[in-house]
Amino acid sequence: MAVEALYLYDKLTTVMTSDHASVVSMNLFVALLCACIIIGHLLEENRWINESITALLIGLCTGVFILFTTGGKSSHILVFSEDLFFIYLLPPIIFNAGFQVKKKQFFRNFMTIMLFGAVGTLISFCIISLGAIHFFQKLDIGSLKIGDFLAIGAIFSATDSVCTLQVLNQDETPLLYSLVFGEGVVNDATSVVLFKAIQNFDLSHIDLTTALQLLGNFLYLFIASTVLGIFAGLLSAFIIKKLYFGKLIRHSTDREVALMVLMAYLSYMLSELFSLSAILTVFFCGIVMSHYTWHNVTESSRVTTKHVFATLSFIAEIFIFLYVGMDALDIEKWRIVSQSPRKSIGVSSLLLALILVGRAAFVFPLSFLSNLLKKSQSEKIELKQQVTIWWAGLMRGAVSIALAYNQAFGLMTKPLVRLLLPWSKHVMSLPSPPSTPKSFTVPLLGSQNGPPPSTLRMLLSCIPTRGVHHYWRKFDDSVMRPVFGGRGFVPYVPGSPLEQSVHQWHCT
Amino acid sequence: MAVEALYLYDKLTTVMTSDHASVVSMNLFVALLCACIIIGHLLEENRWINESITALLIGLCTGVFILFTTGGKSSHILVFSEDLFFIYLLPPIIFNAGFQVKKKQFFRNFMTIMLFGAVGTLISFCIISLGAIHFFQKLDIGSLKIGDFLAIGAIFSATDSVCTLQVLNQDETPLLYSLVFGEGVVNDATSVVLFKAIQNFDLSHIDLTTALQLLGNFLYLFIASTVLGIFAGLLSAFIIKKLYFGKLIRHSTDREVALMVLMAYLSYMLSELFSLSAILTVFFCGIVMSHYTWHNVTESSRVTTKHVFATLSFIAEIFIFLYVGMDALDIEKWRIVSQSPRKSIGVSSLLLALILVGRAAFVFPLSFLSNLLKKSQSEKIELKQQVTIWWAGLMRGAVSIALAYNQAFGLMTKPLVRLLLPWSKHVMSLPSPPSTPKSFTVPLLGSQNGPPPSTLRMLLSCIPTRGVHHYWRKFDDSVMRPVFGGRGFVPYVPGSPLEQSVHQWHCT
Repeated sequence: MAVEALYLYDKLTTVMTSDHASVVSMNLFVALLCACIIIGHLLEENRWINESITALLIGLCTGVFILFTTGGKSSHILVFSEDLFFIYLLPPIIFNAGFQVKKKQFFRNFMTIMLFGAVGTLISFCIISLGAIHFFQKLDIGSLKIGDFLAIGAIFSATDSVCTLQVLNQDETPLLYSLVFGEGVVNDATSVVLFKAIQNFDLSHIDLTTALQLLGNFLYLFIASTVLGIFAGLLSAFIIKKLYFGKLIRHSTDREVALMVLMAYLSYMLSELFSLSAILTVFFCGIVMSHYTWHNVTESSRVTTKHVFATLSFIAEIFIFLYVGMDALDIEKWRIVSQSPRKSIGVSSLLLALILVGRAAFVFPLSFLSNLLKKSQSEKIELKQQVTIWWAGLMRGAVSIALAYNQAFGLMTKPLVRLLLPWSKHVMSLPSPPSTPKSFTVPLLGSQNGPPPSTLRMLLSCIPTRGVHHYWRKFDDSVMRPVFGGRGFVPYVPGSPLEQSVHQWHCT
Repeated sequence: MAVEALYLYDKLTTVMTSDHASVVSMNLFVALLCACIIIGHLLEENRWINESITALLIGLCTGVFILFTTGGKSSHILVFSEDLFFIYLLPPIIFNAGFQVKKKQFFRNFMTIMLFGAVGTLISFCIISLGAIHFFQKLDIGSLKIGDFLAIGAIFSATDSVCTLQVLNQDETPLLYSLVFGEGVVNDATSVVLFKAIQNFDLSHIDLTTALQLLGNFLYLFIASTVLGIFAGLLSAFIIKKLYFGKLIRHSTDREVALMVLMAYLSYMLSELFSLSAILTVFFCGIVMSHYTWHNVTESSRVTTKHVFATLSFIAEIFIFLYVGMDALDIEKWRIVSQSPRKSIGVSSLLLALILVGRAAFVFPLSFLSNLLKKSQSEKIELKQQVTIWWAGLMRGAVSIALAYNQAFGLMTKPLVRLLLPWSKHVMSLPSPPSTPKSFTVPLLGSQNGPPPSTLRMLLSCIPTRGVHHYWRKFDDSVMRPVFGGRGFVPYVPGSPLEQSVHQWHCT
């Protein structure tokens, strides 16, 4: 214990004389986050500004400030590792997207999303890579191997789901949102496959076997990731249903919330561990949790989880954009560019052109294809929407750094959406289907099993997809929900949800 | 942008081939956290077991397992730095304690708490240090300087607030809880002062000026930390009151929650930055936020924040105990001990004895002193309670490592409380005063300004402290609440809280 004591003594002293610089930077960063939220709120009414752009601008200003104070050494106050992004910031954003997504809307367009995410990404990958190989010879930039060109193709053929969340609004344009965002989620798997392929195969001359292998890889990756996510979601639903029903004991809410958060995160990390597509996994985990788990927990847990996930993703997004703003004037980067400004501009514009072409090359044909498959007029993708998808999908950057460029497109996408789809505003007033955590009205009003306000609209929207959705719903009601719980299948608790929650708040 | 591309390419490849070991360990740790929660819940009824002890045991087992798998190299799966503890785990625990503390109970005993926290800690510091200096000469352990002895005194004269939360229940024994936990919070400032003193002054021969200097240091540190915490809390209350009233816009709840969490954390980090007592700061920030800010936010934000803070501290506690369990059989530590088992045992038991004496030397006299000051019989500290305070306060360990030893005392404290204070069980059934977030009934029932159910009890409990509390309440109602909001002073929002919240959930 004396050993302990000295050990502690060392520890305490080290803590007290701990790295001062890091504390300063953390303070500054947290303060900036607060500033972003407040300013972003004050500029709420402004159509051009949102939190992300505010964060971007504030980040820029801070970067300039730091650049001057540090004498042009660096514009960062935090070292931003990929881990920080992929392990801490990305999971809550994607999970929340899955947790809040309109499931019916999403699954109705599932085939189209898969088409865009898999086939479309492959198409634009080929076009961009070939284009790069062909044109980059002319303006001689260093010695790029074939693999580098393919890498460029893989990077710029993948849309970024985080940015989609920024510029497309689920309530205003549900179809576009589900298509573009869904594509962004699916093509994460695609790009993972492509990267592995680039590392393992010799893609300079592809034969049938290689192609089949790649297809197999993609299918394996996609299915494995999805299954893992669904499994994690169902497990959480099962555990919470079995453990917590009815018992109104101390901390039960905290336990439920903690368990949901931890298991969601566990699914992401497991997927990383098995080198699957963690984004796909956590996305589907979010969907399943919102469909089953969320309905098994206590009243207060529902409110809490719903807002916890939203807040986490909110903070993560601001954090990213704030950092990107600072990083935008990273010295080393610009030094490289400034060595050959003409060339850099040439390369950038060339890539931009290739992306535009590559994206156009699959959006319009595939939309046409999917329109053929749809019976009802309401589900067909109009030309205007195709244009929006083509443009909105230009947003690039699987890694935060690239977000800086995306925001430029993002800025122009919002007005474009308003211009092309004026009707979109009216949609917003409609309540979202009560099966998602978004609409909290029904359970709170205590008519949990009664018909929710928007049943009529639900039924209407069901008609076109009676086929698959009808049978899924039957299976869900008869098999899944009795086991895993879910709306209408929450175990009976005496008293109205209100009483229950009050009671519960006492005990917690 | 080509530069970008290659940059991204490198990044992505590094991510895909990222440190596999760390991913494995994170998976394991998160999975273990989930296991602790579930098992802890299943053992809910058991009087001897709680989450912490479960976590401790599970940690031990895992440690053993890892020890064998790694061939006796290490028992850790995560490297546990002080930063992890002081920057991430401690803040939520202390903040939540402040956020949930029964304010009236706490402030009524404020003088007693200050006595214990400041004077008491100083007394036991002197006794333990002098005892160590005197006895350690006999069993010769290495060459310890005077500073080391004083450090030992400072470490073991400080109680640990985290452990108090584990073994004392606010609802069962409010007085004991507020005294012991309050002491734990206050004596953090004391120990910081003592450590600075050890580093700066020559304490081998203290004269009046040094003593006065130390006193001045303590007062400065205590007041500055408290003021900073209060300021942060009031600022958050003011901002949220000014910004968010009535506007039921998208994300308003997420913004409020994010802002509260970030500003609470900011207060802690600022306190660290100014090398004040961060624990004191964040504790008072929690108190102020629960008194003002919490009443200014929307319905759903109240439920969310209340449970978010509870859950965060819940996870942090489990995390700590889980780690401590693993660390308990840290090889290097035991190697040192095993080099001289007789000596180590001697030292440990000696220290234990010194702690017991040092604590007894101030608990009983100071309790007697504070009893003289109290008029009403109800507030006096009975002998039984004094014994419990004396024993419960034995829990040591400002750093997580020491928690392993504390839990031992903790295990024996719970039955002791039950033995000495049988009446405590009845208290639990009473609702907590509606001024704390603990009781959520009032606003939810819509009778926000009407008399809450437990008003009568409140009034009764007010009578003895009519003096200070009465004038504070008047000042609070006439000056503070109109500016910073608070219960009953939440700006009028049309419709009952229920309607409001439903509406709000639509828009969020």
